[in-house]
Amino acid sequence: MNDMTSRRTGGRAARRASRAAPLNDDLRPVRPGLTGGTYTPLTEDGMTRIDRAALDALEQIGLSGAPDSGISQMTRAGATLGDDGRLRFPRALVEETIANANKEITLFARDPRHDLHLAGPRVHFGTAGAAVHMVDVDGQNYRDSTLQDLHDAARITDRLDNIHFLQRPMVARDIPDAFEMELNTVYACCAGTTKHVGTSFSEPSHVAPALELLHLIAGGEDKWRERPFVSNSNCFVVPPMRFASESCDVMEACIEGGMPVLLLSAGMAGATAPSTIAGAIVQAVAECLAGLVYVNAVKPGHPAIFGTWPFGLDLRSGAMTGGSGEQALLSAGCAQMHRYYGLPGGAAAGIADAKLPDMQAGWEQMCSNVMAGLAGLNMVYEAAGMHASLLGFCHESLILGDDLIGQALRCVRGIEVDDETLALDQMREVCLNGPGHYLGTDQTLARMQRDHVYPTLGDRTSPREWAENGKPDLIERATERKEAILAERSEARFDPRLDAEIRRRFTIHLPA
Amino acid sequence: MNDMTSRRTGGRAARRASRAAPLNDDLRPVRPGLTGGTYTPLTEDGMTRIDRAALDALEQIGLSGAPDSGISQMTRAGATLGDDGRLRFPRALVEETIANANKEITLFARDPRHDLHLAGPRVHFGTAGAAVHMVDVDGQNYRDSTLQDLHDAARITDRLDNIHFLQRPMVARDIPDAFEMELNTVYACCAGTTKHVGTSFSEPSHVAPALELLHLIAGGEDKWRERPFVSNSNCFVVPPMRFASESCDVMEACIEGGMPVLLLSAGMAGATAPSTIAGAIVQAVAECLAGLVYVNAVKPGHPAIFGTWPFGLDLRSGAMTGGSGEQALLSAGCAQMHRYYGLPGGAAAGIADAKLPDMQAGWEQMCSNVMAGLAGLNMVYEAAGMHASLLGFCHESLILGDDLIGQALRCVRGIEVDDETLALDQMREVCLNGPGHYLGTDQTLARMQRDHVYPTLGDRTSPREWAENGKPDLIERATERKEAILAERSEARFDPRLDAEIRRRFTIHLPA
Repeated sequence: MNDMTSRRTGGRAARRASRAAPLNDDLRPVRPGLTGGTYTPLTEDGMTRIDRAALDALEQIGLSGAPDSGISQMTRAGATLGDDGRLRFPRALVEETIANANKEITLFARDPRHDLHLAGPRVHFGTAGAAVHMVDVDGQNYRDSTLQDLHDAARITDRLDNIHFLQRPMVARDIPDAFEMELNTVYACCAGTTKHVGTSFSEPSHVAPALELLHLIAGGEDKWRERPFVSNSNCFVVPPMRFASESCDVMEACIEGGMPVLLLSAGMAGATAPSTIAGAIVQAVAECLAGLVYVNAVKPGHPAIFGTWPFGLDLRSGAMTGGSGEQALLSAGCAQMHRYYGLPGGAAAGIADAKLPDMQAGWEQMCSNVMAGLAGLNMVYEAAGMHASLLGFCHESLILGDDLIGQALRCVRGIEVDDETLALDQMREVCLNGPGHYLGTDQTLARMQRDHVYPTLGDRTSPREWAENGKPDLIERATERKEAILAERSEARFDPRLDAEIRRRFTIHLPA
Repeated sequence: MNDMTSRRTGGRAARRASRAAPLNDDLRPVRPGLTGGTYTPLTEDGMTRIDRAALDALEQIGLSGAPDSGISQMTRAGATLGDDGRLRFPRALVEETIANANKEITLFARDPRHDLHLAGPRVHFGTAGAAVHMVDVDGQNYRDSTLQDLHDAARITDRLDNIHFLQRPMVARDIPDAFEMELNTVYACCAGTTKHVGTSFSEPSHVAPALELLHLIAGGEDKWRERPFVSNSNCFVVPPMRFASESCDVMEACIEGGMPVLLLSAGMAGATAPSTIAGAIVQAVAECLAGLVYVNAVKPGHPAIFGTWPFGLDLRSGAMTGGSGEQALLSAGCAQMHRYYGLPGGAAAGIADAKLPDMQAGWEQMCSNVMAGLAGLNMVYEAAGMHASLLGFCHESLILGDDLIGQALRCVRGIEVDDETLALDQMREVCLNGPGHYLGTDQTLARMQRDHVYPTLGDRTSPREWAENGKPDLIERATERKEAILAERSEARFDPRLDAEIRRRFTIHLPA
């Protein structure tokens, strides 16, 4: 044991030296766009049957509620309008649409380092949602969320390595006017982070002014169209199988303006979608395929994310639940269907039903996040910060989510098997000629940073060290980090002249 | 919306009625022995290479440290003893051993309802470990664990549906004598639960008296041998590649006594095993294959669990860590190798590095538990209650772990795809003829209990209800449940006459 201790001390010094060297980005143990796909909840036969049922649903049931413009575009493409007002989609039209749709999308970011390349089973985690409450951990209160809360979430996201994009996670309830709220949402998000931003619009007339704002930020419409760094999260459908007419108009305006579209079908399994996991996936797939036909009828190849977002329901109470195993399966199954079609896709994971960032929140958020990642979901939305089944957003939880998702990403990265990692030579050396242990070997040190994810706030001390450190509280440490981030000067903030120009043109509710 | 509300009320009444009917065991949404295997972190080629490297290691490096009896048995079977004192295993011997080994094991329980059938990718979760501290959540203290703590853990385990077995999770540090401690451990576990029990012995001489105790409990040696309800967790190897001589002697005594053996190889990746995930798996597989040769040389077909338990290390500090993504991959990769060989196997998951049942504990425990389950690990050891990287055990965390594992089991159960679950007919009915929603349909109600796992302590209320309920604290609710369980009369306790007989024969430290 003494011998072991002295050897370990030598190892420690070497580890310290090795740790001092900074890591290049490409050596970081986890990164955006790691490749998932090792988890396949559906069999090949299961996927084929889901596909067939979805195509049957589109051909036989179809969707109601399309706006006139959509009816005109989709019937021109080959859909048929029934006497019952439902648009039906022949199998050939859907299959042709899938074949010709945009299969590899780049979601640009103001800072190109944060561009997201959606293809195959590449995985990205980020925020999303429309929480109406801010969760104050200090005092354990739910209060109305504000524009400042949203901007702070953007600023925090900007600093977290494992939160790869910011889709608006909460509603600025301090701005009563819908147009001003949505425009300020775009401002607050973009002024807080240079990562890709997602947002939504309640009326088509809000799109043009928002594009004007985005042109200003981009430095001109051409620059915006070259690298659109905001996507439109679009609830184009009201499940079951009904187009949301106004959202469809918004979608057409966004396509016209060069903005990528997230085709979001958010059914509730047991309420607005079948209560079975397979059935909810069938309906979500059918609806998103209809959306894909729509988008490609308006503009062939326009970037669209296949947003099958079925949510779970607690059937005892009839209330939504997002932290369940059923939810994790819903999203992972959807991810596999995205791969089946080869379409860039997104779904919801990481939702906690827990009201606070407690143990329940930890297990709920990890379950669906790691399963979505392992299933190869391109865009894992709502992955951090969401509580109370999407009703509350919490900054501390967002910060802790960065640790949680870092670990999930390590799992997505998986197990490398090659001659070096199999380590037979090393085993031979250590057992036959060496010290009888692997501490401080060159191979161990070389992989110390490249292969291992270390938590930022997660605590790995021994009980003794932990007690000596005053038993640090996880939430308090997250609050400290939040305050440190918000005290920094944001690198995402706009140039003062640009900001002044924006403020001359629009009513901006954030202080300059 | 009003229409929706009134319909929902109807749905609620129907749900309430449906909920009143008790569920048969076979209709419970999750059960012991659900089938995993949808998650495959290793490719076919990766598994083949790990197998080849492990067989090379056995043939070329071999293991040192076997006791004389083991050398004699294993050389008789075909192993060769080198001048360097290492036993080497020809490929043919290992392959023949695998072919003839016991592939389907039943781990019996005192109550046959709790028997565990280890075969294929059937998944069971339970406790294990040798924590030296009890975590008191009240006051957040780590203190020495006692026999009473262990007995209480057994009694709590007995009442938790998703904790399928009790391997001794902590050490009774209030009993200084090793023999009395180990014998009282068997007593405290068996007197607390009728589920399968796992335990360990530090010296071969402790086995015979423990067997005598077990014969008493079973009602005779024949009854014990018919349904041995205790297995021996045996650290037969000190990684890297060295037999633990004394534990091997214990193992031989247990085999002789008819006790199933868990062949436990607990290397630390980066210290006593290679730092790479693949390398640590190779070494663990090689070591357990050597153990399998040993067991089958002593008694062909004796039930043995392939216990590849590589642990992670925080390479910055050199301290063990069990809550990492690397740990989750280690155990899931091992599970896949068990399937590769068709051998019943176990590994560690569910370990928290967190000192308390906080958000970190939640994400750490879920990550490795759900991945182990999806990978089809037969025996998920250390799945609940373990904190501080195995140093502390917590009753409240064990209770919350039941919720967490229930959710993980729901994920293991997976997505059923058949005509009923695809729900195309239901979708047609609801969209074309029906109310436009699925609330309260026969199909929805029928699946309300059979398909959905509801948390016991996990909170799904709305922020308003939660506030009205006084913002219940998760840990406090777990403490209440603990106190309620421990206030009940235990159904596992021994008949008073049997208990008196045991106490005449042995010094039992628990009050009668």
